[in-house]
Amino acid sequence: MTDPKRYKLTVAYDGTAFHGWQRQEPLGQPVLRTAQGVLEDALVRVLRQPREALALLGASRTDAGVHAIGQVCHLNTTSPIPPERMVRAINSRLPDDLEVRAAEVVDLSFDAIRDATDKQYRYRIFDAPFRPLGLRNLVYQHPMRPSFDVMRMNDGARRLVGTHDVEGFAAVAHGRATTVRTVHRCCVEEHPIPAGLAGEGAAGRELHVVISGSGFLYNMVRIVAGTLVEVGRGAMEPERIDEVLATQERRLAGPTLPAMGLCLEWVAYGEVRSSKFEVRSSEKEG
Amino acid sequence: MTDPKRYKLTVAYDGTAFHGWQRQEPLGQPVLRTAQGVLEDALVRVLRQPREALALLGASRTDAGVHAIGQVCHLNTTSPIPPERMVRAINSRLPDDLEVRAAEVVDLSFDAIRDATDKQYRYRIFDAPFRPLGLRNLVYQHPMRPSFDVMRMNDGARRLVGTHDVEGFAAVAHGRATTVRTVHRCCVEEHPIPAGLAGEGAAGRELHVVISGSGFLYNMVRIVAGTLVEVGRGAMEPERIDEVLATQERRLAGPTLPAMGLCLEWVAYGEVRSSKFEVRSSEKEG
Repeated sequence: MTDPKRYKLTVAYDGTAFHGWQRQEPLGQPVLRTAQGVLEDALVRVLRQPREALALLGASRTDAGVHAIGQVCHLNTTSPIPPERMVRAINSRLPDDLEVRAAEVVDLSFDAIRDATDKQYRYRIFDAPFRPLGLRNLVYQHPMRPSFDVMRMNDGARRLVGTHDVEGFAAVAHGRATTVRTVHRCCVEEHPIPAGLAGEGAAGRELHVVISGSGFLYNMVRIVAGTLVEVGRGAMEPERIDEVLATQERRLAGPTLPAMGLCLEWVAYGEVRSSKFEVRSSEKEG
Repeated sequence: MTDPKRYKLTVAYDGTAFHGWQRQEPLGQPVLRTAQGVLEDALVRVLRQPREALALLGASRTDAGVHAIGQVCHLNTTSPIPPERMVRAINSRLPDDLEVRAAEVVDLSFDAIRDATDKQYRYRIFDAPFRPLGLRNLVYQHPMRPSFDVMRMNDGARRLVGTHDVEGFAAVAHGRATTVRTVHRCCVEEHPIPAGLAGEGAAGRELHVVISGSGFLYNMVRIVAGTLVEVGRGAMEPERIDEVLATQERRLAGPTLPAMGLCLEWVAYGEVRSSKFEVRSSEKEG
């Protein structure tokens, strides 16, 4: 045992077989398999300390089926394992669908939730006249397979950038006192379908709704993506985004898309990441 | 019922949850879930004819866990469903991990196995310092995560192109009378890891062993890929390929890589497909 240290871990997972990030112990029932729970079980064995002493806290409570490549959490430990061996030591105890990608000793005052200044999510839409097959737990395919107008989607997306009351894009029971958030980036990217999934001469692409900001309300990214899908297939005008922001009316926005298309890409601390857009420091979440 | 017609179907599947292509009915045990079996069950209901009357035959007997985007099979039917509605009719009865991508009425003499002139397979190697997570059933990752020299791998790969006795690259029990095959193309491609899987600034790529030819012996593509992995990580010289072809010694080749990295891309009939290489007609498999 050594002096207590605080670690910041960057964690990636395939959310398919997890009941979300957050540990869940329904009364009188078996513990559900969650990313936090599986990670804690590994940490207890590697660090040789009880779970409560870890005080593990994750930056984003991702839902069941949602993926992450850059979830961040903090934890306390008195383990003598040197920091440079920590990633490998933890990963040796983790299953194939969860991985620690970085471990860093941080100040004891570091807080994965409170200190986060910016997060980025990506929602993957599979836009092809065939099924995603092996990608079906990673992407969303619209049941009608409409043709999407990406220009229109980006016209809608850019209207979200800035500081707004975003309550109209939140699930009704979002449980937050304040609903003003700053969106730093919102756009729709086109990506080719990886080799080995399309056929010869088959036309197909993925559309990725990429959104970063100071914070998000419950289901917000999935509702934004659902609204942009409606805009892209011509069922809503791009101006609908402005109306939802002006009225905070959830019913004016599009549907909540399913969890499997969503991935938490990164959580930033201190300086807002990305040189691609300007951010005023006054836009940080209160 | 109409006059008997023969159909050529192009079929794609995620092989993860299938015990391979070929129907399997172990004596006294439940029927195993195979791609052919699931497809036949759908066809029986859509075409309203008994399974035996379909006489379904697939071009490639892919193994358990192997994927396909361009498997080809033929079948007979007297169904009155118009050809242009056939794909949608069948797919409405298929699960998410199997799909018919094309259906074409062909001459009654067409044979999916006998008339195939060329097939292409792709073996995906995940070459990154992190886990493939959601792609783990679609790609292979070497346990030691070595650094691969793609130039060396291509030096090895090009030695396979041409007409050779390839018995040294086959599983011992391949069950074929003749072991001479013509490889039309063999190369190693680099592909970026799709967005949403790598992290920010994380270096990573996929290496794809792409091989097409007149025919393949049992496990041949997985052994060729295993040998090229040994060449790429410096454990074998590129000249080893020549030695295996000269001696037909299986023990000189590399290991058989796991099924999940492998995908059947296409099966060609008549003219050999691809303008990327010259093929003499005398090279066709006898």
